[in-house]
Amino acid sequence: MKRSEIRELLKVTRQPDIISFAGGLPGPETFPVADFEDISCKILREKGAVALQYGPTEGEKPLREEVAKYLAREKSNINAENILITAGSQQGLDMIAKIFLDPNDIAIVELPTYIGGIQAFRAYRAKMIGIAQDDHGMKMDQLEAALKKLADRRKKPKFIYVVPDFQNPSGVTMSLERRKRLLELARQYEVPIIEDSPYKDLRYKGNSILAIYSLDKENYVIVLGTFSKLLCPGLRLAWIMAPSEWMDRMIVAKQSMDLCCPSYTQLLVAEYMKQGLLQAQIEKIRKIYGRKLEFMLESLAKYMPKGVEWSKPEGGLFLWIKLPKRMSANELFPKAIKNKVAYVVGSAFHCNDKGQNTMRINFSYSTEQQIDQGIQRLANMIKENM
Amino acid sequence: MKRSEIRELLKVTRQPDIISFAGGLPGPETFPVADFEDISCKILREKGAVALQYGPTEGEKPLREEVAKYLAREKSNINAENILITAGSQQGLDMIAKIFLDPNDIAIVELPTYIGGIQAFRAYRAKMIGIAQDDHGMKMDQLEAALKKLADRRKKPKFIYVVPDFQNPSGVTMSLERRKRLLELARQYEVPIIEDSPYKDLRYKGNSILAIYSLDKENYVIVLGTFSKLLCPGLRLAWIMAPSEWMDRMIVAKQSMDLCCPSYTQLLVAEYMKQGLLQAQIEKIRKIYGRKLEFMLESLAKYMPKGVEWSKPEGGLFLWIKLPKRMSANELFPKAIKNKVAYVVGSAFHCNDKGQNTMRINFSYSTEQQIDQGIQRLANMIKENM
Repeated sequence: MKRSEIRELLKVTRQPDIISFAGGLPGPETFPVADFEDISCKILREKGAVALQYGPTEGEKPLREEVAKYLAREKSNINAENILITAGSQQGLDMIAKIFLDPNDIAIVELPTYIGGIQAFRAYRAKMIGIAQDDHGMKMDQLEAALKKLADRRKKPKFIYVVPDFQNPSGVTMSLERRKRLLELARQYEVPIIEDSPYKDLRYKGNSILAIYSLDKENYVIVLGTFSKLLCPGLRLAWIMAPSEWMDRMIVAKQSMDLCCPSYTQLLVAEYMKQGLLQAQIEKIRKIYGRKLEFMLESLAKYMPKGVEWSKPEGGLFLWIKLPKRMSANELFPKAIKNKVAYVVGSAFHCNDKGQNTMRINFSYSTEQQIDQGIQRLANMIKENM
Repeated sequence: MKRSEIRELLKVTRQPDIISFAGGLPGPETFPVADFEDISCKILREKGAVALQYGPTEGEKPLREEVAKYLAREKSNINAENILITAGSQQGLDMIAKIFLDPNDIAIVELPTYIGGIQAFRAYRAKMIGIAQDDHGMKMDQLEAALKKLADRRKKPKFIYVVPDFQNPSGVTMSLERRKRLLELARQYEVPIIEDSPYKDLRYKGNSILAIYSLDKENYVIVLGTFSKLLCPGLRLAWIMAPSEWMDRMIVAKQSMDLCCPSYTQLLVAEYMKQGLLQAQIEKIRKIYGRKLEFMLESLAKYMPKGVEWSKPEGGLFLWIKLPKRMSANELFPKAIKNKVAYVVGSAFHCNDKGQNTMRINFSYSTEQQIDQGIQRLANMIKENM
């Protein structure tokens, strides 16, 4: 295991005069602080003895019911029994790895893919096969070829891990056609799909595409969802939705990992949802982040030299920048820090260490003024090194 | 992995008419609900943007500083850099297992030992060697013999796991002499000690014995501590104290497990400690549980038939009952449930499945009335089966 590149970078980038596009931090101006204050007190006053006691391993029933209701917007027949509450989606990934992966087992991931997935799978010494992405998501012909090649050698990957909406880091959204094809291939080769979906509701324009789980009729999909981006990350509450046949193993794994999530904060979020506050919160976030995204795209257009490309996502938290091929975002990084601006090197998101000329930048955390200044600093530094 | 016996039992034992001595639940009357209400609001009002954001992987600095101060009562030179905040001690155990254990690696544990430890180590497919206990703790001659036998075969256990104070489940406290001998053996055979210490401050009579870490001059001890029994379990906050050379690996492991613990509840507990409220809370708990322990011991003396033995601990949350040798607590269990009283079978705490004639009962959760009735039911059922 290597110490997380993101976390290490975050330490440097916490210096107060640095403009950091490195983290994946939500904007703190979106946090529902006042609502939480009211509801926290209500929970402690009315249910203190339950809120501060050990709770069920699978999570507090009221929260699991609210999450099931939330997910049932896209697919019927989802109920609380399919939901397990986790300590952030990172714990969901750790749990998936614990259940599915032995040393040298194979996991299929996207190129690039979420760094926390890479870390979780690596911790169990899995091998990762990366499948390239284009603007429509994971390339299905490459996936099929990889599955076939493995099958010819009588091998089977343990799962296919995808972030289909506004992927972290690339911002790419998988097309409906690819989602359907992914399911076909999963069925044909009998490989479960892990649909990691933290950003689906953070869409600022365009039309939503059906979740993979909502297209699935044969229980091939396990879904990871989280409150970190909808409400706030500081409660560390997320969920796994899994077909019943997986739930028992998940609960056993969760027991050995931390017994259960905090009842206090689970009941807080359950009450928040029961009061119907989540929808307005999501709409508020969409407005704020949508504006920031537009602003960052304008700044990029204004300052970046020719030869630099960037994604134009319709949602999520991240933009993906491609430098000219011979440039290395890794080599530029110390210079960026010297110029008081930070990003995450794209290679950290590649299970094969490629992507040296790419970087991920976040637009949800900084103010417009910081975005303008930070992109200008970044652009100047790139120009100087061209 | 098998589904946790404790958790499964807890489900049955949650039926409202059952008197359950099965869980390890603190008494909810001890929870500092009113203080938490005040401090929750203060934290959200004054530090909402930090409390609801991602925090450092190793934990919030103010809490790590308070924990270090708390632990420094027994040993100087402990500072925040040695403390990592975990989601309950169960996550600490999972983290220890993740870092130390590969399949077929050996861990040395006590006979009996904490069931959560067994689960965490089993999840990584470790082999456990159980060392018998007597009234003074783990038997050091047996430990030495086991270490020597392994060394002769050029094998080395990855760690020695002990719960030295008011052990869960046996209630036994390791003598000072044994603690010193344990450290000598650890040094001689170069095996780290995991000192799991959730109950040390829950001493109701007698004198405290120095923690193993406070006797350690060569960094052989990693300590697990928790707020679950001092404050409440519902926040899921605990800590690992480790020598600096281990901390980096712990932080990497924590990153892949859940990124970080909730900042909100960490700042809540830090403020609670900073306001100096913890000491009074511990004194309150000691009084309440000390009374319950006495009451349960009296009930046992009053109702239990000859041939049944039980421990007389000076602290902790549990009593350990030995039935006559030919009786099985496992076989009695369904009858106990029918008689509306529950316990945990002792074999669940044995890595070798022995201890069939033993059971663990908890005295912190029930009221005096429930203790009286429950012990009576238990005693009657045992009498009938003698």
